[in-house]
Amino acid sequence: MTMPSDAGEVRGPADGLAIPRFAGPPTFARLPRLDEVTRCDLAIVGVPFDSGTTYRPGARFGPAAIRQGSKLLRPYNPAQDTTPFHSVQVADAGDIACNPFHIQEAIGQIDAGVQALLGSVRGVLALGGDHTIALPMLRAVHHRFGPVALVHFDAHLDTWDTYFGAPYTHGTPFRRAVEERLLLEDRGVHVGVRGPLYAATDLTDDRALGFEIVRATDFDQVGPAVILERIHRRVGDVPMYVSVDIDVLDPAHAPATGTPEAGGLTSRELLALLRGLRGLRVVSADIVEVAPAYDHAEITAIAAAHVAYELLSVLALPNL
Amino acid sequence: MTMPSDAGEVRGPADGLAIPRFAGPPTFARLPRLDEVTRCDLAIVGVPFDSGTTYRPGARFGPAAIRQGSKLLRPYNPAQDTTPFHSVQVADAGDIACNPFHIQEAIGQIDAGVQALLGSVRGVLALGGDHTIALPMLRAVHHRFGPVALVHFDAHLDTWDTYFGAPYTHGTPFRRAVEERLLLEDRGVHVGVRGPLYAATDLTDDRALGFEIVRATDFDQVGPAVILERIHRRVGDVPMYVSVDIDVLDPAHAPATGTPEAGGLTSRELLALLRGLRGLRVVSADIVEVAPAYDHAEITAIAAAHVAYELLSVLALPNL
Amino acid sequence: MTMPSDAGEVRGPADGLAIPRFAGPPTFARLPRLDEVTRCDLAIVGVPFDSGTTYRPGARFGPAAIRQGSKLLRPYNPAQDTTPFHSVQVADAGDIACNPFHIQEAIGQIDAGVQALLGSVRGVLALGGDHTIALPMLRAVHHRFGPVALVHFDAHLDTWDTYFGAPYTHGTPFRRAVEERLLLEDRGVHVGVRGPLYAATDLTDDRALGFEIVRATDFDQVGPAVILERIHRRVGDVPMYVSVDIDVLDPAHAPATGTPEAGGLTSRELLALLRGLRGLRVVSADIVEVAPAYDHAEITAIAAAHVAYELLSVLALPNL
Amino acid sequence: MTMPSDAGEVRGPADGLAIPRFAGPPTFARLPRLDEVTRCDLAIVGVPFDSGTTYRPGARFGPAAIRQGSKLLRPYNPAQDTTPFHSVQVADAGDIACNPFHIQEAIGQIDAGVQALLGSVRGVLALGGDHTIALPMLRAVHHRFGPVALVHFDAHLDTWDTYFGAPYTHGTPFRRAVEERLLLEDRGVHVGVRGPLYAATDLTDDRALGFEIVRATDFDQVGPAVILERIHRRVGDVPMYVSVDIDVLDPAHAPATGTPEAGGLTSRELLALLRGLRGLRVVSADIVEVAPAYDHAEITAIAAAHVAYELLSVLALPNL
Amino acid sequence: MTMPSDAGEVRGPADGLAIPRFAGPPTFARLPRLDEVTRCDLAIVGVPFDSGTTYRPGARFGPAAIRQGSKLLRPYNPAQDTTPFHSVQVADAGDIACNPFHIQEAIGQIDAGVQALLGSVRGVLALGGDHTIALPMLRAVHHRFGPVALVHFDAHLDTWDTYFGAPYTHGTPFRRAVEERLLLEDRGVHVGVRGPLYAATDLTDDRALGFEIVRATDFDQVGPAVILERIHRRVGDVPMYVSVDIDVLDPAHAPATGTPEAGGLTSRELLALLRGLRGLRVVSADIVEVAPAYDHAEITAIAAAHVAYELLSVLALPNL
Amino acid sequence: MTMPSDAGEVRGPADGLAIPRFAGPPTFARLPRLDEVTRCDLAIVGVPFDSGTTYRPGARFGPAAIRQGSKLLRPYNPAQDTTPFHSVQVADAGDIACNPFHIQEAIGQIDAGVQALLGSVRGVLALGGDHTIALPMLRAVHHRFGPVALVHFDAHLDTWDTYFGAPYTHGTPFRRAVEERLLLEDRGVHVGVRGPLYAATDLTDDRALGFEIVRATDFDQVGPAVILERIHRRVGDVPMYVSVDIDVLDPAHAPATGTPEAGGLTSRELLALLRGLRGLRVVSADIVEVAPAYDHAEITAIAAAHVAYELLSVLALPNL
Repeated sequence: MTMPSDAGEVRGPADGLAIPRFAGPPTFARLPRLDEVTRCDLAIVGVPFDSGTTYRPGARFGPAAIRQGSKLLRPYNPAQDTTPFHSVQVADAGDIACNPFHIQEAIGQIDAGVQALLGSVRGVLALGGDHTIALPMLRAVHHRFGPVALVHFDAHLDTWDTYFGAPYTHGTPFRRAVEERLLLEDRGVHVGVRGPLYAATDLTDDRALGFEIVRATDFDQVGPAVILERIHRRVGDVPMYVSVDIDVLDPAHAPATGTPEAGGLTSRELLALLRGLRGLRVVSADIVEVAPAYDHAEITAIAAAHVAYELLSVLALPNL
Repeated sequence: MTMPSDAGEVRGPADGLAIPRFAGPPTFARLPRLDEVTRCDLAIVGVPFDSGTTYRPGARFGPAAIRQGSKLLRPYNPAQDTTPFHSVQVADAGDIACNPFHIQEAIGQIDAGVQALLGSVRGVLALGGDHTIALPMLRAVHHRFGPVALVHFDAHLDTWDTYFGAPYTHGTPFRRAVEERLLLEDRGVHVGVRGPLYAATDLTDDRALGFEIVRATDFDQVGPAVILERIHRRVGDVPMYVSVDIDVLDPAHAPATGTPEAGGLTSRELLALLRGLRGLRVVSADIVEVAPAYDHAEITAIAAAHVAYELLSVLALPNL
Repeated sequence: MTMPSDAGEVRGPADGLAIPRFAGPPTFARLPRLDEVTRCDLAIVGVPFDSGTTYRPGARFGPAAIRQGSKLLRPYNPAQDTTPFHSVQVADAGDIACNPFHIQEAIGQIDAGVQALLGSVRGVLALGGDHTIALPMLRAVHHRFGPVALVHFDAHLDTWDTYFGAPYTHGTPFRRAVEERLLLEDRGVHVGVRGPLYAATDLTDDRALGFEIVRATDFDQVGPAVILERIHRRVGDVPMYVSVDIDVLDPAHAPATGTPEAGGLTSRELLALLRGLRGLRVVSADIVEVAPAYDHAEITAIAAAHVAYELLSVLALPNL
Repeated sequence: MTMPSDAGEVRGPADGLAIPRFAGPPTFARLPRLDEVTRCDLAIVGVPFDSGTTYRPGARFGPAAIRQGSKLLRPYNPAQDTTPFHSVQVADAGDIACNPFHIQEAIGQIDAGVQALLGSVRGVLALGGDHTIALPMLRAVHHRFGPVALVHFDAHLDTWDTYFGAPYTHGTPFRRAVEERLLLEDRGVHVGVRGPLYAATDLTDDRALGFEIVRATDFDQVGPAVILERIHRRVGDVPMYVSVDIDVLDPAHAPATGTPEAGGLTSRELLALLRGLRGLRVVSADIVEVAPAYDHAEITAIAAAHVAYELLSVLALPNL
Repeated sequence: MTMPSDAGEVRGPADGLAIPRFAGPPTFARLPRLDEVTRCDLAIVGVPFDSGTTYRPGARFGPAAIRQGSKLLRPYNPAQDTTPFHSVQVADAGDIACNPFHIQEAIGQIDAGVQALLGSVRGVLALGGDHTIALPMLRAVHHRFGPVALVHFDAHLDTWDTYFGAPYTHGTPFRRAVEERLLLEDRGVHVGVRGPLYAATDLTDDRALGFEIVRATDFDQVGPAVILERIHRRVGDVPMYVSVDIDVLDPAHAPATGTPEAGGLTSRELLALLRGLRGLRVVSADIVEVAPAYDHAEITAIAAAHVAYELLSVLALPNL
Repeated sequence: MTMPSDAGEVRGPADGLAIPRFAGPPTFARLPRLDEVTRCDLAIVGVPFDSGTTYRPGARFGPAAIRQGSKLLRPYNPAQDTTPFHSVQVADAGDIACNPFHIQEAIGQIDAGVQALLGSVRGVLALGGDHTIALPMLRAVHHRFGPVALVHFDAHLDTWDTYFGAPYTHGTPFRRAVEERLLLEDRGVHVGVRGPLYAATDLTDDRALGFEIVRATDFDQVGPAVILERIHRRVGDVPMYVSVDIDVLDPAHAPATGTPEAGGLTSRELLALLRGLRGLRVVSADIVEVAPAYDHAEITAIAAAHVAYELLSVLALPNL
């Protein structure tokens, strides 16, 4: 669809040789703000909302932490041999202000905010916030692109029905998305699932909703390449959305999250998987559940920033 | 009213010479659980609710942290020359389960839970939780005791009207309490207020609601004794409620809280004030806003546990 | 031997949909206390003892930390396709109070406490505490089951003789156990051993005591499946005890321990090994050396809670 | 001199009732950026430079931390009964990029950057950075206002001569300033000095340079009011500069600093002193030496943000 | 007795202008090791023992932490106008190795080690370790100087009798010292006592042992000068020992300790008290109960290092 | 060349059975100081310099932290079946004092200090400090051994040209080393490289300087054995230098470093690689970029200590 920008007119990050990385713009990767560029291909937007959290709250501070953890990101991505910040115009759109006391109002605000962005850019990367925000992201994506495939990295299924009577929480976005027909049928896959469940029916319910599961323990047998083959086969050649819950990583690699589960992926495994999404038609994405009060030395924030960087690298490719 | 229990039948905390303080019951101060005693005078109850928080969330883990921080509390209080755990029966009633996704439902659950307790005990000490919980505490207290005076230790007024359209948050409980006529007129006092406000009208509005303010900076001129005189004069000889927001302490003394303000009280000043409430007719109390994800070495939890201990010591006195 | 309980009468954990996981009972996995059930198959017991520690102390706070880290554990274990908390009655027996100033007295208290439990339950999972506690565990197990095989996950051999003249420390339990004939001959295996030793004779001495060693570096060559084959071959079809020192994990996965060594297992590897013990006749187990003062964001406590969960899942199986 | 702005045209901070304080602009106190306002009275500027540090480095991350710690600052200052963000236009000018590898080049860059700002605003508040930056601040202030008085809050004198042969470090700015005649004679005062020195001559040398010393221990005898009287008498009715090294606070109140000394001021004492500068002709100021890698729960950053707020409140007054 | 050394021959700390403070000798205050000097007046010795701890262990790492926290100490003490490291020879004697598994053996080792030191130096400053070590310190001091007065800074009395049957723990040293007639009658004073006790008899028992108590709350009424008058009157003109438990400080000022109690002294108050001991005949001293696993940014270690510095400053005076 | 010392005369570490590991000498691995031995084969030296750092400073405290993290290292290395501290004399030479304010002067001081050491020992292991120190290390090594091969473990290439005009920083040592002909041609290899770069030319420039790159992602395909084969083939039978930047590890394994990049090696992988250097002619080495202000529970310091231990084990071998 959209052609990559003419590199000549793209405004990249602040120059690390002129402005030290500990100084300068507080945007993601020191990129320009959206209001500083005349046109934009990819927008990064913070969604500081965590009122859908069931255990440790604090992901409302996630966008600020991921931006702070992104200061060392440089323009050339050798792992993908691309320059995502130069091949297209990427900009930081700031935060969407949303109501911490009314989940549904907040969901509406996020949907509206992302729809507005998708009116002028070709893809959005959301920095959460808790996983509740994936639902309004998918609504806005659906509004622009129609139903999409879903590749979902997470320790959890997030297809529960309700929690304390609430239909919209960080444990339910993908069930709601199926019910609202935001997703293409049988094109969804959870990757990295592990940890105890409420009941065996959690798995059968999830399957009935049309999802496939790649468990964290599958990585004990096979490498990322085999997993990626399953993902590619599942998704095929349709527009897709990528949702990354940072708790897909082991707590050693991502202590700062709301519902941590032992036995997760390493950051190297996750980055390999994200890079392997090349060739798929990723239209938008999120990275969620970074709760910085639990972080140490920015371990989690840095991992999330690298996740965002690889997602942007994939989003920056001409998507067929 | 209620006579102190006959000391002979009271069950006190687990014996620190038989069960090391790092072992044993996980109750507040190693006291018996409510279900372990046949009668009870004072109940401690956890209220793990923080969905009314406007900045740093996490006070939902407050009750667990305060209990953990209370392990060193011993039975004899030399500062008041009393044995609060032996003069009356004190017990830990566990937590009130409340809905993190519906503030008003949660308020109802807390009100109901505390009313139930006050049906059989003479006083309740709530371990928060954010300050939203003071409203249902006051409702339940009102149901049992009628309108009460209020002594409120806090960096903030907590008499704002709404926040993001929400009438029930941790910044509004005392305005709601006035509107609901839960408080006696002109018997309320905030102690320790400091930090920037939205506008000068915050102060006049608060005054119009019938509150008096003792600022943190007042402590630069006069000691606790003078402040206590003001409090006693304000409250007089009526039933009263004490609400302690841990952020009344300086962040050095209470880092683990949701809306910290520099320039606060020391823990020694606060404890002196609480001990000085002797002679007032305290009927119930709370200690709120401990957000342990921000704590270090239990500084805040230990301060809150000592606050709770002094409140219990006052509550344990025959209240006239 | 013991048949699994009739599921109908089993009391499982507090319901996460009725009582938020940040509220509710402070027991392991929110299970009932031992005094709340009329019968019990498996008991979890805290052993807060760390006076046998040679470097960083603090494992006395381990049981409290592991319980706090276990709040997210749900009843269905998809990795083993079992419901350990429903197929048998599991309950939390609280802590064994033991003397921090007399190691041998403490060992006697632990032995007595566990023997008492094993008089009415079919298996015990101990939450340490330092590794000293494995000796009284093995004594009590021997009293009930006779000599057993040992699968021991640890960075260290723990078969030293004495330390500063003391025969009972966290570095010596398995030498003592051999000397006391608590173990079956040639049925012991250490898994995950690494790090510098005093001398090459440490290895030959250990072998002379009848142990086999699986080194951490063995995992560089082969996966958990191959290691498990070695373990199964070693142990065979006899009653066995599992002892897990959390320092078998890399410090990245378990910072909060007393004698950390770089180059350890990941939590995913360890959980895979524990699940692979299915089919062996595990009669009791421990998880030790969690020293929470060194933890961050509960990384270690959560890993230990998952270890405990997988051990309970194996213990809950009908053991042949 | 400069008249306060007509309040009607002033742009204040982002509205906390529309944009949650954990969202929104990453500027100091959520104020507008300098490029967002058409005119500006007071500029806040970050100076992320710490290559002059002799012990713990890291103040290069100070500006980002102070801005993050300033999110709760509201527009009305009840302690001074002023609305600093509405009575004049205050804006955040971002960071001055300066060379971390050449101290003198960096000093030149800071001087130039602040001079440029002082060409269009009437006062600058610098967020350090280490104390080296006070020298270029004073150079730029001198360029605009001529020589000034100095009120310097610090545990240290910062009038050493050289360190490892280097004349420009965080321990020497005020000796250099005297030598360069940037300061008015006998109008300088250090407040809060404490801790061991190299020799008694440190004190006599300092006195010879024209400084008076208020020791931290003086606060044991007298309150802020008496100290303020000394300061006012010392400074009188001349233009003055205020330099606040956060290590004037006790490490309990400001752990995150480079050369901490026990026995310091409380944040309440410091804020009282700063408010008491009202009536003096403050023309510019700095708050330095916040090294956030050593912070916990933003204790230091919040204290520094409040220091900045009180300084801005004084700077915002019509200065005679 | 001993005359101060001729300053000409004294070897002071490593020069901070030649060897950066983050480099150089790992001794206390960068002083010479005992084996580097030909004669010595005052010896600093580490006593890394914490097996007498009843709650949080870890003071075994105290000596290393206090030394690390002492790097900024310079030779001239302006608060006492003395140069303790130049007026006499002070040296770091390293650590006394003592058995962590046998309290009484350890006590014997400490006694022997300190006696050996006191054979050649005139005073010893011990860096603990838990408070158990005060007993062998007093035994060695008694061996050299006969019975002494005691000034004891602590939140606790430390005159309990036994704990879990153990007569030698960190809660009992001063009762044992009285029983062993190591102390002069009616010349002992506890300063800073606060927090709950087991029973009112704790106070009467303590008084019967001959101690006077200055409570932490006494500081609310009077300043250090008045307290010091009480201390001087109590002690008079006899040889005395000073024991400082760092928990005399509020947890805000000393989080890293084993049995923290809210409501303590500030570091400024404690340092004022220690300086006020001038004129008393201090013969040896200790600073104990620093448990660095609970420290943050060295707050506690720095406070303890300053305590040690003021104690050395007093010890360095010609003691009459 | 140099023959291993006669084991009979070697002085090893302090005995862990006589002096607890939390007590005793503060040297690396409790080894003797250089001044305590009459001859020495391998010297460990601290180089506390971090003024070449571009992002998070603090590696100046690295030597102290690595020494503290080395206390558990015992004499026998089972992974290499060697006793490095007994087969040759290893000693701790303390720190090289170098000027934090003049990078080139500091480089000269380090060069001189290491040359002096290499005048009497056969190999040096430097504990950094930032990566700038590799240049003076290579200069001193070149002075003694002539040009060498380089095996460089790092997330980064460290062959940039200048930064802010400065030719000597932690990002440039190996370009300078090539320019100064300190390295053998085509014998250099970077291992573990990952993360974004400035431009694709970073890679081609590096290749033009004669380096080969083993990327972190290569470890996804092949194990350490294959990587080692590449390294051995590259280096061959010439004298070589090993430089280990701790950021080659994933931030989970080494949070405490200046420029962390997600997706790194595990400590187990790195230790396997270092052990596999056996058979190569390692003449000296460094371990750099440990910035302890960002460490937690010594995770990074312990990993670095193990790195140092394996390097010493290789250095202790008779090198052909």
